[in-house]
Amino acid sequence: MAKDEKKLVEEITPMDEDFAQWYTDIIKKAQLCDYSGVRGCMVIQPYGYAIWENMQKEMDRRFKETGHENVYMPMFIPESLLQKEKDHVEGFAPEVAWVTHGGNEKLAERLCVRPTSETLFCHHYSNVIHSYRDLPKKYNQWCNVVRWEKTTRPFLRTAEFLWQEGHTAHATAQEAEEETIKMLNVYAEFCENILAIPVVKGRKTDKEKFAGAEATYTIESLMHDGKALQSGTSHNFGDGFAKAFDIQYTDKNNELQYVHQTSWGTTTRLIGAIIMVHGDDAGLKLPPKVAPIQVAIVPVAQHKEGVLEKANELYKSLSEKYRVKLDDSDKSPGWKFSEYEMMGVPVRLEIGPKDIEKNQAVLVSRVTREKRFVSLDELDAEIEKLLSEIHTQMFEAALKNREEKTSTASDYEEFKKCVMEKGGFVKAMWCGDEACELKIKEDTTATSRCMPFEQEKISDVCVCCGKPAKAMVYWGKAY
Amino acid sequence: MAKDEKKLVEEITPMDEDFAQWYTDIIKKAQLCDYSGVRGCMVIQPYGYAIWENMQKEMDRRFKETGHENVYMPMFIPESLLQKEKDHVEGFAPEVAWVTHGGNEKLAERLCVRPTSETLFCHHYSNVIHSYRDLPKKYNQWCNVVRWEKTTRPFLRTAEFLWQEGHTAHATAQEAEEETIKMLNVYAEFCENILAIPVVKGRKTDKEKFAGAEATYTIESLMHDGKALQSGTSHNFGDGFAKAFDIQYTDKNNELQYVHQTSWGTTTRLIGAIIMVHGDDAGLKLPPKVAPIQVAIVPVAQHKEGVLEKANELYKSLSEKYRVKLDDSDKSPGWKFSEYEMMGVPVRLEIGPKDIEKNQAVLVSRVTREKRFVSLDELDAEIEKLLSEIHTQMFEAALKNREEKTSTASDYEEFKKCVMEKGGFVKAMWCGDEACELKIKEDTTATSRCMPFEQEKISDVCVCCGKPAKAMVYWGKAY
Repeated sequence: MAKDEKKLVEEITPMDEDFAQWYTDIIKKAQLCDYSGVRGCMVIQPYGYAIWENMQKEMDRRFKETGHENVYMPMFIPESLLQKEKDHVEGFAPEVAWVTHGGNEKLAERLCVRPTSETLFCHHYSNVIHSYRDLPKKYNQWCNVVRWEKTTRPFLRTAEFLWQEGHTAHATAQEAEEETIKMLNVYAEFCENILAIPVVKGRKTDKEKFAGAEATYTIESLMHDGKALQSGTSHNFGDGFAKAFDIQYTDKNNELQYVHQTSWGTTTRLIGAIIMVHGDDAGLKLPPKVAPIQVAIVPVAQHKEGVLEKANELYKSLSEKYRVKLDDSDKSPGWKFSEYEMMGVPVRLEIGPKDIEKNQAVLVSRVTREKRFVSLDELDAEIEKLLSEIHTQMFEAALKNREEKTSTASDYEEFKKCVMEKGGFVKAMWCGDEACELKIKEDTTATSRCMPFEQEKISDVCVCCGKPAKAMVYWGKAY
Repeated sequence: MAKDEKKLVEEITPMDEDFAQWYTDIIKKAQLCDYSGVRGCMVIQPYGYAIWENMQKEMDRRFKETGHENVYMPMFIPESLLQKEKDHVEGFAPEVAWVTHGGNEKLAERLCVRPTSETLFCHHYSNVIHSYRDLPKKYNQWCNVVRWEKTTRPFLRTAEFLWQEGHTAHATAQEAEEETIKMLNVYAEFCENILAIPVVKGRKTDKEKFAGAEATYTIESLMHDGKALQSGTSHNFGDGFAKAFDIQYTDKNNELQYVHQTSWGTTTRLIGAIIMVHGDDAGLKLPPKVAPIQVAIVPVAQHKEGVLEKANELYKSLSEKYRVKLDDSDKSPGWKFSEYEMMGVPVRLEIGPKDIEKNQAVLVSRVTREKRFVSLDELDAEIEKLLSEIHTQMFEAALKNREEKTSTASDYEEFKKCVMEKGGFVKAMWCGDEACELKIKEDTTATSRCMPFEQEKISDVCVCCGKPAKAMVYWGKAY
């Protein structure tokens, strides 16, 4: 290892030494985001934002394919509008930012910066929904929201973050429930097939559900350090909001009915999940389908005749299909190798005079670090194959980590030991009482992550209180 | 005209009767946006937002092709940061929204909701620019901004609006000036080739320039009613912001230098321009390249055997290339014809039993309303040709309107008459004094729109004061 390369790696704290510092180092080194002068808000730099753009493209396509349309709602919510739904305002009011002055004048009514937009969508829906012919309304919005968090961490928890929020209105309760589950499945498929992150699908307990929802469903993923991350949620509101906002329609029998609503959201915290699920001590490891650079071309002995020409030629032909970067800067090849590893670029392509002679290039996988000597005639097909292999390997490694860090507990001593010593997910039975959730949180800091759709019967009684069990729950410490 | 169709058209006020009401009617009928419960803020509905998405795609591609990267900055600016550049804060402070409380606590320092993000970009640039190797930085951001306007109109002037803002930092003054002009040209090309809106390119007078800029360049377009609309601006900041925010780099001679900066922006008000440049009494007329629906397929006698099957078949094959809607609802064909006219869909495709017999379809242009009977074998090529013709016809009609409404004045009486009676652009000489701009505004409400790059010499003296002229100016009343 040359001095330069060593320095690059040395600046990243090993993850087993200090995972939080490793996370911070990675973000800084890879220039994903920068601290801003504004408390709890971050600057998302080009490399970080490009990941988000690729995620947006994939998700947006899925939303449109499932019949959703994009809209844009105001960023401000008048205080009186926020207060219309009792549970909702209780959940959000303590963490909103308040606008009190416009220009030099004090506002007659305070406006909060949206922490989420249910109230705005409801207000709009009450304007535009009149008849069963107006249903369903299936809207989505890409925007920024603000939640005044006390402690913040880049991507994972920031005062302002970017997200998408779907909001739909349906004629029947059944349709709303189907939509809620459908969008949870869209999220799960996106996480697994695009981000290579395996997820557990399930339902939140009442304690953990969204303020104002009848039911909240979630996808939960497990980070490398054994902590869980809520990665997307989908809520069924029933007709609670419709009643609070008077959203009624005339059905086919000319009778007035309340609509049934859903909302669902994912945020830039998924970038945090990508970092913490896949990364290693050498840096980021980006899922090929959202990596801003899928192939980094590094010319070797680039001063020699024909090398840069060949590298440029490959760059042009590969750019038609892949996101490619050609690095012809005057840094050493070794430095570049480490740099693209650190940046998590899935495939490095090396090309030097000897390779040109042999009509070949060298492909190096970020995951296995294995070198493949590939004929230039088969380059395109080999890259496609390698990217696909990398995705699968990343997904399997993440799944293996989750499985290794998932345990089952049938008594409380065992349960506490699992949570405190092993970390990860702990599967255990629960009686359905919030009191047990509170006790478990106090004893271990773990929370109920979800009641998974795939239930198992570990025992007949609650792991905490011994009363009859109602459901098996995934427990864990969470970000 | 059937009763239904008549009703649809009657709801739109004729533009010559009341242009402002026509504008409002169109927006409501075409469901582009809805008033929200928040003062001065609008809900952009799916059809309006889809236009913006198509505009974004086209612009974003141009920004990336010219070497710009997308980023995301915080939406809040601490008061002390906003105040760092004297002219800038003077220009914007009177019209910002202030956040004073987070959750239940009063903030130590007020935060304004960004009216524009120069100060945030400067703060970030001062963090990340150290050496000439870090330059240029060419960033762009898509986001929402807030300006606390007293009177608002949908798209044209709203308290919150969507836009993109480019912010760049360069090593030299020359590079910054080149960037400023380059992006103005990107905007002009986009307006003309994508939105079919002809623009006048020029420089703003000092009175009209951006707060904190050395020079502001603009593209100005003319609406159907003869009022001008500033459609995009590009600013050269010189090193003014760099000095205020201490953005310095070490040059190749190891000497400290200030960077030179630019910014440039376009907003959702361009949707207002599309409506007011192209629309007519029948409704919207959307430029084919951003129309959410380029081709509306209306089956005729759809209950007859084979009609819906054929319509579906055409829908499938055309959807691979165009944005197509097949309307198989139970409304009458006549109603659908009027509806897609009102929605400004460039091409209507009618297909009925007789057409199927003859292996043909009927294409109707939104602009000429001419019917073309086209063999199904040539449908794709004919649609492509028709969409291209429609774009050209729309551009030429807009240009003709502008030319008819552009006059030249060499004395002040004539000037006032042109502005007050004819409207449109008035070309006249100007001495360079703000006093004349103020007098003209007081006498006529017209403002200087720009000093066009293509200068003409109309006379030797200022049209207002008679002192020696410095430049020919486009004057006009503006939105």
